[in-house]
Amino acid sequence: MKIALAQLNYHIGNFEQNTEKIIQAIHHAEEAGADVIVFSELSVCGYPPQDLLEQADFIQSTEKAVATIAGTCTRIAAVIGAPVLNENQRGKKLFNAALWLQDGKVSFVQHKTLLPTYDVFDEYRYFEPNRTFEVIQFRGHTIALSICEDLWDHQPVENSFARNSLYTISPAEELAKLNPDLLINIAASPYSYNQGDKRKNILINNSRQHQLPIVYVNQVGGNTELIFDGGSMVLNRNGEIVHEMPLFEEAIQFIELDNIHHSPSKASTAETEDLRLKNMHQALLLGLKDYFFKSGFNKATLGLSGGIDSALTLAIAAEALGSENINVLLMPSQFSSGHSIQDAKDLAEKLNISYQILPIHEAYQSLLNTLQPIFQDLPFGLAEENLQARIRGTLLMALSNKLGYLLLNTSNKSEAAVGYGTLYGDMNGALSVLGDVYKTDVFKMSRWINRNQEIIPWNTINKPPSAELRPDQKDSDSLPNYDLLDAILFRFIELKQSASELIREGFDAEIVNRVIRLVNLNEHKRFQAPPVLRVSSKAFGMGRRMPIVAKYS
Amino acid sequence: MKIALAQLNYHIGNFEQNTEKIIQAIHHAEEAGADVIVFSELSVCGYPPQDLLEQADFIQSTEKAVATIAGTCTRIAAVIGAPVLNENQRGKKLFNAALWLQDGKVSFVQHKTLLPTYDVFDEYRYFEPNRTFEVIQFRGHTIALSICEDLWDHQPVENSFARNSLYTISPAEELAKLNPDLLINIAASPYSYNQGDKRKNILINNSRQHQLPIVYVNQVGGNTELIFDGGSMVLNRNGEIVHEMPLFEEAIQFIELDNIHHSPSKASTAETEDLRLKNMHQALLLGLKDYFFKSGFNKATLGLSGGIDSALTLAIAAEALGSENINVLLMPSQFSSGHSIQDAKDLAEKLNISYQILPIHEAYQSLLNTLQPIFQDLPFGLAEENLQARIRGTLLMALSNKLGYLLLNTSNKSEAAVGYGTLYGDMNGALSVLGDVYKTDVFKMSRWINRNQEIIPWNTINKPPSAELRPDQKDSDSLPNYDLLDAILFRFIELKQSASELIREGFDAEIVNRVIRLVNLNEHKRFQAPPVLRVSSKAFGMGRRMPIVAKYS
Repeated sequence: MKIALAQLNYHIGNFEQNTEKIIQAIHHAEEAGADVIVFSELSVCGYPPQDLLEQADFIQSTEKAVATIAGTCTRIAAVIGAPVLNENQRGKKLFNAALWLQDGKVSFVQHKTLLPTYDVFDEYRYFEPNRTFEVIQFRGHTIALSICEDLWDHQPVENSFARNSLYTISPAEELAKLNPDLLINIAASPYSYNQGDKRKNILINNSRQHQLPIVYVNQVGGNTELIFDGGSMVLNRNGEIVHEMPLFEEAIQFIELDNIHHSPSKASTAETEDLRLKNMHQALLLGLKDYFFKSGFNKATLGLSGGIDSALTLAIAAEALGSENINVLLMPSQFSSGHSIQDAKDLAEKLNISYQILPIHEAYQSLLNTLQPIFQDLPFGLAEENLQARIRGTLLMALSNKLGYLLLNTSNKSEAAVGYGTLYGDMNGALSVLGDVYKTDVFKMSRWINRNQEIIPWNTINKPPSAELRPDQKDSDSLPNYDLLDAILFRFIELKQSASELIREGFDAEIVNRVIRLVNLNEHKRFQAPPVLRVSSKAFGMGRRMPIVAKYS
Repeated sequence: MKIALAQLNYHIGNFEQNTEKIIQAIHHAEEAGADVIVFSELSVCGYPPQDLLEQADFIQSTEKAVATIAGTCTRIAAVIGAPVLNENQRGKKLFNAALWLQDGKVSFVQHKTLLPTYDVFDEYRYFEPNRTFEVIQFRGHTIALSICEDLWDHQPVENSFARNSLYTISPAEELAKLNPDLLINIAASPYSYNQGDKRKNILINNSRQHQLPIVYVNQVGGNTELIFDGGSMVLNRNGEIVHEMPLFEEAIQFIELDNIHHSPSKASTAETEDLRLKNMHQALLLGLKDYFFKSGFNKATLGLSGGIDSALTLAIAAEALGSENINVLLMPSQFSSGHSIQDAKDLAEKLNISYQILPIHEAYQSLLNTLQPIFQDLPFGLAEENLQARIRGTLLMALSNKLGYLLLNTSNKSEAAVGYGTLYGDMNGALSVLGDVYKTDVFKMSRWINRNQEIIPWNTINKPPSAELRPDQKDSDSLPNYDLLDAILFRFIELKQSASELIREGFDAEIVNRVIRLVNLNEHKRFQAPPVLRVSSKAFGMGRRMPIVAKYS
C-alpha cells in the first residue's frame, strides 16, 4: 500500500484556499499511484481555530469543505482533520476528528481522545473527548486513526512537579487491542527549540510498545504565535524511523508500507548547537513570513538602534520579507553614542534596507516643555527614559500608519521577562520576533548569521548592551549579566523551578529572588505586549497565564 | 444545625491574609454558636490562581494554610476550598476540592466533578475531574458537598449553537442518590449584567429536582478582569430562596437549617433597569477598587477629554478611590472644541479632582516636524489623528511614571469592538474600566449617576460623541448610530449570532457585514489592550480567544 504524507501549511478560516490545497494534493497523490493520502489535524479549517469554533457558520463552512473534499476521493482514500458535531445531547458540542474519506464520502470518523489543555492548548474548551475505538479495513490492511495528543498519554516532563501521565486512558493501547497493522497519527504539533527529540521519542515508544508502524503527519506554518515545524515521519514496527520529512516547509512524500518493515534504522543525529540555532532561525523566518502573508501584509518597519536586538530582528525580517519591503528608522537622542548610529547605518546598508534618520531631540525637548507643570524640577529618572522610548514608538507608528508598514517589535525574552522595556514605547509592535529568544541566544544567533560573512556588524555583537536612555547607561547597571540572568529565567519559566530549588542548585539567593520578583512584577506589562513568535516550550503569551493582581511570594 | 455563610473577598496567593481572614470568620461563627461555617471555592489561595497552580511552592503554601486553618476547627466544622494533590499516578496533578474541616483536621474531601473550561474558565488546564461521590454525617445530618459548576450540568444558553448540557454526568444527581438532607455548594461565580437570574434558576432547579435544601456560598471581590458579586443564598427543599446575602460586599450570615423548611418563598423581584445599572456600577466600583488595593496602588490618573467615556470613568474612579487620590490631565489640541475643555473642567471641579491642562499643540507640531521626511506633503489622515492620541497617551504615562499614578483607560466596549481607538494612544492604561460597557450603557449609567443631581455635566451626556481628532469630527461620520451598533455587537459578541442570523432578524446586511468585519479586523488591537473589568457574559480579554491571523468570513 502506497501512502502519501501531505505536510501542508493551512490558513485558519480560509476554507477556499485550504480546500483547494487539499484537493490538489489528492490529485497529485492519485497520479502518483497512492492508495491513501494523509493530511494533518484540523487541516480543513486550520489549527488552532480558537473561539471561531463557537461560531455556527464556521462549522457550517467546515462541513461544506469536507463534503467537497470527500467528493474528490473516488479512486484514492484520504485522511483529513476537521471539527465535527457531537450527535449526543450531552457533552461539548464538537469532536476534534480524523475523517477517512473514500468512495466520495466520509466513510469513517475517529474522534480525538486526549485533548491537550495546557500551555498553548485549549482543546477541552471546545471538544468532547472520544471514548470508543474502531479500526478501518482498507485494501487488505487494518488501519487505526489517532490525532496528535492521542499518542502522548505518557510524556517526559522537565520539572519534578509536573505529570508524566496527564490522562487516565491510552488510546494507542486501546487501538492496539484491535490488531491494526498501521497506526496513522495526524498532528498539529508546534516547534520548540528546547524539546529536542521529545516528539520522536514519543513516536518511537508508541511504535515499539505496540509493535506498530506509525505514519505521522504534522502541519507546517505559522499561526500568530505558534510555529508548526512539519517533520512528518514514518516508523516501522520496531520503532525505527524509516522516513523523515523536512522541517519548516511544505512537502508531499510517499512511502510504500510493505517496504518499511526491513528498512535499516536511521542513526539518530544528535542536535548540534549549530543545528539548534539554524532551526530556531528557520522557525522565526517562517513565523514572521506567515504572520505577514496570511494577514495580507508584506512591508515591515522597525527602530534600528545600533544594538543587537534590532539588528537581529532586521536580519530575520529582511530574509523573510525581502529587503525591498523594509523601511527602518534610526532615532538618535543626545544619549545615543556615535558608534550606535554608525553600526545601525552599516547594517542597513549591508542589507540594502532603506532607512531614515529622525533625531528625537526636538520632540523630546518639546514634550519636556509640555510636561513642565508635572515634572517641575524633579530629577531626571525613569519617566524621562520612558519618554524617549515612547517618542520612538510614536514615530514608528506614525510611519506605519502613514505608509502601511507593520511595526516589528525588537524586544528579547530576557527583557520581556524582567520588564526591561517601555510599555507603549519599545514594547510596541504588531509582532514580537525575538520575544521568546533569550538574550544569550540573540548573541548566539547573531554570530551564527555571521558564520560565513559579517552581516550584523561585529561591533554590534561585541559591545556591551545598553538601552542608551541616560548617559553611559549599560544593561549590566541594573541587571545581572545575561548568562546568569538567562540561566535563572530558563529554570523559572521553562522548567518552572521555584526560588528555593534554584537556590539549592547553587544560584545566589539575592539574585534569584530579585529576578523572580521582576518577572512577577511585570505581568501587567506583558499582558499588553504584542504576540510573540513561540520557539520554546514556554513562551510569554497564550501559553503562560498568570494573574496580574496577586500576591507573589 | 446553625450554618454560617462566609462570603469573603480573597487575594490570590496571599496565603497569610486569606488564612487570617478565614480563621477570624471561624472564631466569629464559633462565638455565634454555629455548627459549621462555609467558605467559597479555592478560598485558601484565591480564585482564579491560573498558572500559579503549576508552581510547587504555591501548592505547598496552600497545604500549610489548610493545616493551619484545620487546626482551629475543634469545636466547629468548616468547609473551605483549595487545590489538593491527585494521589493517582495518572491524570492531572491536582483536584479542585471542598475540604471538610473538623476535630482539628481535614476529615473529608470532595473533588470537583464538572470543570468549567469555556469563556474565562480554564479549569481542566489544571484539575482532574472527580468521579466518586460520598456524603458526610455530621451532628445528625447527612451533608453533600459540591463545587460551583457541579450544579451547572444543565444550563440555559443564549444562542442556538451552544449546548445546554456540556457534561455527561450530573454530580447533584449522583449525590442525591446518597440521600443527603443538605447540599452545600461553594462557588466562585463572576458577575455579569446580562445573565439576570440564571444562577438563581440553576439553584432553584437543582433544589426542586432533588428535593434538597442548598447552601450556596459565593466569593466576592475583583481579581484583575473578573468581578465576583457574592449574593450567597439558601434554598429550602422546595426550591424557595429563604435567605439572600448582599451583592458586592463581604458578609458573614447565619441560618438555622431546621427552620428553613417552612419559610415562605420570597417573591422573585424582577431586575429593573435601574437595578441593572446600579449593579453594573457597583461591580465596576468593586473591580476598580480591588485592582488598585490588591496591587498596592491607590492613586489614579486619566485623560479628561470633555467626552462622556472619560467623564464616567472619572466619576467611578473618584467614588472608588476618593477624589483626593486622582489627578487628571486635560490635553486640548487645535481640534478640541471650547465646550469640551469647559465640560472637562466643570466635571473635575464638581468632583473636586485636581487637574492640569497640558495643551498638545507644541508637541504635535514638533513631532510633525520630526516626521517631515516621512509625511512629506501627504494629506492629513489617520496617522495625524493617531499622533494626537499617542501624544496624549505619552503625557499620561509620563505623569504616571513620574508621580506614581496608575493610568485608567477610558475606552468603552463599542469602541474596543470596532477598533475606534488608537493603540499606544487612548488605548493605554493599566485597567480598562468601561471596556465591557457598551456606549449605550455608558450613556445610561451616566444618566443614572446624575439621577439625583448633576455630577457628569449634562452637556457632556447630551452632545454628539466625537473623538475631536480632526475638524468637526463626529463618531457618526464613520460608525452607525450607537443604538444600532450596540444591538449588532451584542448579538454578535455576547449571543454569538452570525451575520446571516442577524440579517434574518432584520438588520441591514451592509451594516451588519461592515460591523462584523470591523470587529474581526481589530483582534490585533485588542490583543494589546489593557485588562477589562468584565461585567457581561462575554468580555474582551481572557474570555474571548480569537486568532489574530485568520481569514474571517
